Amino acid sequence: MEKTVTGTNVQVGDKMFSLIEELYPICRSITGEGVRKTLNILKKQFPLEVYEVPSGTEVFDWTVPKEWNINDAWIKDTKGNKIIDFQDSNLHVLNYSIPVDRKVTLDELKEHLHTLPEQPDLIPYRTSYYNERWGFCMKHATLESLDEGEYHAFIDSSLEEGSLTYGELYIEGETEEEILISCHVCHPSLCNDNLSGISVATQLAKDLLAGENRYSYRLLFIPGTIGSITWLSQNEEKLRNIKHGLVLSCVGDEGHVHWKKTRKENSEVDRAVARVLEESNDAFELLDFSPYGYDERQFSSPGIRLEVGCFMRSPWGTFPEYHTSADNLDFVHPESLEDSFNKISSVLQLLEDNRTYKNLNPKCEPQLGRRGLYSKTGGQSQQAVDHMAVLWVLNLSDGSNSLLDISERSNIPFNAIRVAADALKEVNLLKEM
Amino acid sequence: MEKTVTGTNVQVGDKMFSLIEELYPICRSITGEGVRKTLNILKKQFPLEVYEVPSGTEVFDWTVPKEWNINDAWIKDTKGNKIIDFQDSNLHVLNYSIPVDRKVTLDELKEHLHTLPEQPDLIPYRTSYYNERWGFCMKHATLESLDEGEYHAFIDSSLEEGSLTYGELYIEGETEEEILISCHVCHPSLCNDNLSGISVATQLAKDLLAGENRYSYRLLFIPGTIGSITWLSQNEEKLRNIKHGLVLSCVGDEGHVHWKKTRKENSEVDRAVARVLEESNDAFELLDFSPYGYDERQFSSPGIRLEVGCFMRSPWGTFPEYHTSADNLDFVHPESLEDSFNKISSVLQLLEDNRTYKNLNPKCEPQLGRRGLYSKTGGQSQQAVDHMAVLWVLNLSDGSNSLLDISERSNIPFNAIRVAADALKEVNLLKEM
Amino acid sequence: MEKTVTGTNVQVGDKMFSLIEELYPICRSITGEGVRKTLNILKKQFPLEVYEVPSGTEVFDWTVPKEWNINDAWIKDTKGNKIIDFQDSNLHVLNYSIPVDRKVTLDELKEHLHTLPEQPDLIPYRTSYYNERWGFCMKHATLESLDEGEYHAFIDSSLEEGSLTYGELYIEGETEEEILISCHVCHPSLCNDNLSGISVATQLAKDLLAGENRYSYRLLFIPGTIGSITWLSQNEEKLRNIKHGLVLSCVGDEGHVHWKKTRKENSEVDRAVARVLEESNDAFELLDFSPYGYDERQFSSPGIRLEVGCFMRSPWGTFPEYHTSADNLDFVHPESLEDSFNKISSVLQLLEDNRTYKNLNPKCEPQLGRRGLYSKTGGQSQQAVDHMAVLWVLNLSDGSNSLLDISERSNIPFNAIRVAADALKEVNLLKEM
Repeated sequence: MEKTVTGTNVQVGDKMFSLIEELYPICRSITGEGVRKTLNILKKQFPLEVYEVPSGTEVFDWTVPKEWNINDAWIKDTKGNKIIDFQDSNLHVLNYSIPVDRKVTLDELKEHLHTLPEQPDLIPYRTSYYNERWGFCMKHATLESLDEGEYHAFIDSSLEEGSLTYGELYIEGETEEEILISCHVCHPSLCNDNLSGISVATQLAKDLLAGENRYSYRLLFIPGTIGSITWLSQNEEKLRNIKHGLVLSCVGDEGHVHWKKTRKENSEVDRAVARVLEESNDAFELLDFSPYGYDERQFSSPGIRLEVGCFMRSPWGTFPEYHTSADNLDFVHPESLEDSFNKISSVLQLLEDNRTYKNLNPKCEPQLGRRGLYSKTGGQSQQAVDHMAVLWVLNLSDGSNSLLDISERSNIPFNAIRVAADALKEVNLLKEM
Repeated sequence: MEKTVTGTNVQVGDKMFSLIEELYPICRSITGEGVRKTLNILKKQFPLEVYEVPSGTEVFDWTVPKEWNINDAWIKDTKGNKIIDFQDSNLHVLNYSIPVDRKVTLDELKEHLHTLPEQPDLIPYRTSYYNERWGFCMKHATLESLDEGEYHAFIDSSLEEGSLTYGELYIEGETEEEILISCHVCHPSLCNDNLSGISVATQLAKDLLAGENRYSYRLLFIPGTIGSITWLSQNEEKLRNIKHGLVLSCVGDEGHVHWKKTRKENSEVDRAVARVLEESNDAFELLDFSPYGYDERQFSSPGIRLEVGCFMRSPWGTFPEYHTSADNLDFVHPESLEDSFNKISSVLQLLEDNRTYKNLNPKCEPQLGRRGLYSKTGGQSQQAVDHMAVLWVLNLSDGSNSLLDISERSNIPFNAIRVAADALKEVNLLKEM
Repeated sequence: MEKTVTGTNVQVGDKMFSLIEELYPICRSITGEGVRKTLNILKKQFPLEVYEVPSGTEVFDWTVPKEWNINDAWIKDTKGNKIIDFQDSNLHVLNYSIPVDRKVTLDELKEHLHTLPEQPDLIPYRTSYYNERWGFCMKHATLESLDEGEYHAFIDSSLEEGSLTYGELYIEGETEEEILISCHVCHPSLCNDNLSGISVATQLAKDLLAGENRYSYRLLFIPGTIGSITWLSQNEEKLRNIKHGLVLSCVGDEGHVHWKKTRKENSEVDRAVARVLEESNDAFELLDFSPYGYDERQFSSPGIRLEVGCFMRSPWGTFPEYHTSADNLDFVHPESLEDSFNKISSVLQLLEDNRTYKNLNPKCEPQLGRRGLYSKTGGQSQQAVDHMAVLWVLNLSDGSNSLLDISERSNIPFNAIRVAADALKEVNLLKEM
């Protein structure tokens, strides 16, 4: 599994897992101190720019909401015992809950409780960003054990003018054309969704900063939905440079990789991902685009139309741990994180390498022998794959086929095609378009 | 089964069957009193215009033939017994037979007889429109029972200057664009082919007259081949408005629905029919276009090129009752007629509803919550299909996708897509193109 | 099997086999007397033009090599016994071997020997055109029987300024548009690869010369690779007329036909071959284009781009006899040669006949009855296929569909479509575009 693009022989998967461990306890939401703490931890690893957008700012059809913060929360029974405690799990509070400090009957309390009757030992994750109310989430088993009587509901939260916080890293490459990598940072103590995405994006950032890139890269660490809408509304002039995009989510579980295609469904990034996954010989699945899911929804809206897909292992909603307290540190694995990282790195490398050439000797084949590109004894029926790659590159390099086109048509691994193209370029038989 | 588009809760299938019963005894042909009587019966149900085109009129490559009428016909044996009698079945006479009143030997008679040796108890239906001759059709069993001897062949028919008769109904809609519905009226006592088509077209006429339509509708009740050629040659200026067309034939038997595609094979009407049939969960079959069959042959000729397909249950020639005396009142069923009527109505409704919109908030998703289009508590993994329909309509309504395009791509039922579009239009998020 | 396009009822397969027998003993290479002798034998059968291109001539990226000739060759053991002898098989010498006359140890000799350890009783065919060295090919069994000791290696060959020889036949047709047929003439005593191609091309030449053709034809009998490169570099102005091309190779073995598609993969010649093979009801296989194989490699290079595919029975490299002494007179069969000839003739005939027409009566069907193109009694459910062909030709002849398009869409055999078109042309219902 040790095959990072920088070649440093360290446990990349373990490093990504450690970052998840560090971020796990923080109570994040779409605004507030949780996001700031998270981004500050990332800043220790790479030069992330952190932006604050004031509450009330109009962002397309939306408005940046009030900032939400929370110190503590619990429910006590008549004896003063804490039934549930925010300090045990930040999932216990309905995310964006308004403050409360009230004694209520069990029946009244129940109107503010969220449980999972089918998964009685898990705490659900619930939010109420745009409807001001208070609430708690708990194990259904706990709810069932409650006696009639008075309960004390306490939430020490605040919902006030403040700002929405997001992080952005721009890495300048040889060209202005950009690849966008985006992950959300708004979920509290949930590991796969989406600390795994934050952690893999962090590793990619460090890796890309260490290398030389043809593309420029833009990495976004943003709250889901409102974050992408905010960023898009404030950065419209940057969109024309974004050629390809990947949203990362749920990249740490043990499932195989799923790629949700872009709205266009045959974008270059779709084809690059498909090629990398096919060549990996691992199981994988390509999913059709749909206008639901993560921030690819916003990036793919008809007035934005970026070619952005979503890279996942198990897709959201398909695993029982999704949006529950079971999406914890046991659910993500260094091996899975590293495999996700490696595959995404390969996709980026393929995009970097996917050039289009023109054969400078287009009339008949050039004599490869005198250029050292051909074994000099003819007549054998078996030819090395590399030689076939050379012939395919020469034949299809009429200016209309990229190396990915050639790899797809010949069904020769992309890297063999790239190596052949490099060799041909070296002997001046190819010119980049 | 009671789901007519007008919503009146009557036995529509039974009404259509009754009309077939009334029309069944009439001896129709491509010209003559039979067609006139038939159209006069239809006129009692809706304001059909009846046209007469004189014999000898040139219609493209053809000439309107002489008008054929018949009063009586029989064959008598030497004892004066009627072997066959036109009064028992009008199929007994070769349709368009010239008159005869002659005593002939059995051998000579046989040259004028048509039977079905493989189906000895059925009378075949045969015609001779463009080759003047006399003839009879009978059960093969009857033929086999005939003794040698002299027979008296008598046909009291006439073939004289007259006219070709057809009926037309134009229903003006909001736009000049038309949907054409055509059926043939030239077959004598045959129920599925094509009294069923006449009867379903009649019900559609009444239904369309009772409603408000975006499209204008043109319904043709015409003799096969020569009727469509005549109509086309005299109405060329009307063709440019005809956007979609359905020929109806054999729509009353118990088989499942077959749709013979238009010459283009992916016309809007082809896709509308396919969508309705797929969503019905009933068995159905789509047939490739071929330049044989009913009047879609003429509508699809290279100089006419209307997008017209053919809606059938069992296709002509595929059922043993086809063009025989067994295509009688027992062979068609109110339930089948009603199912055909309902499905065709759904196709018309889909075409009526198939608009193309432009999302007026194309940059990112609009905030659906504040417009009452979204359940206000986030975080659940399950979304109602209607919400997905809303998202698909917003995402694909860039002016290039119709609601049918969106239904096909999302695989969400057309009506759910239409309902979503209506809701979005109501809150000013969509504008019709 | 006797169905040549000229209709002469002779054993065409046997004639082609006899030509192979006559050519088999000659030691051919990419230059030299072997090719000249071969072409002179062909000249006895049809007026082939023979061209000589001097060594040193620059042909695109290549240079015409020195001419190679050989008189004798052998290896003798210490006792003077000939271990192998060129007079037994010309495969014993590495094709293009430089001369040698030297006593060497067994170890030194082995560096110059080529054998097939997996097929110990066969002599391999090996060449070294662009790397000057000497060598022998022998059975691996012979090699294994050799004792240590001194051996006398003798090759009486010459590599000197001379020329490259090729043959060309141009047959003028009604139009300047050409069909190219190419085969290679550079292999020594090997029957399927490619005396079979030479022999079938010869038969085609005689046949085409005997008939009247719409297309002009150009037949090339050229050394592989350097021959096609030479011809292309010296005939660039002729390329614009070449509309279709077939390379013939390995057309005499008992395998079924394989067609390697043109670079474009849906060229008219690809579709013509597919149609002929489908209609033959024999097994066949269509292979995707790849830039390896025979001279279609050069014809398909990006600066040449002719629509040339390769007609084979068993493809090169897929049969154990390939490039060994087992590709001898036992491996090719008159029946296979004749079947190849017949199928290629049918392809050429289809291309000759594949015209595009315009229906001169495009508005509705013309009245076929009065033109004798229709049985005059209507009403039957069965229609002869010819009538369907007539209707399809009328319906699709809008100037955009060729007869091959119509045959493909209707799935009616091409000849039935052509016969229908001829009949319609005769009654002035069609005009050629």
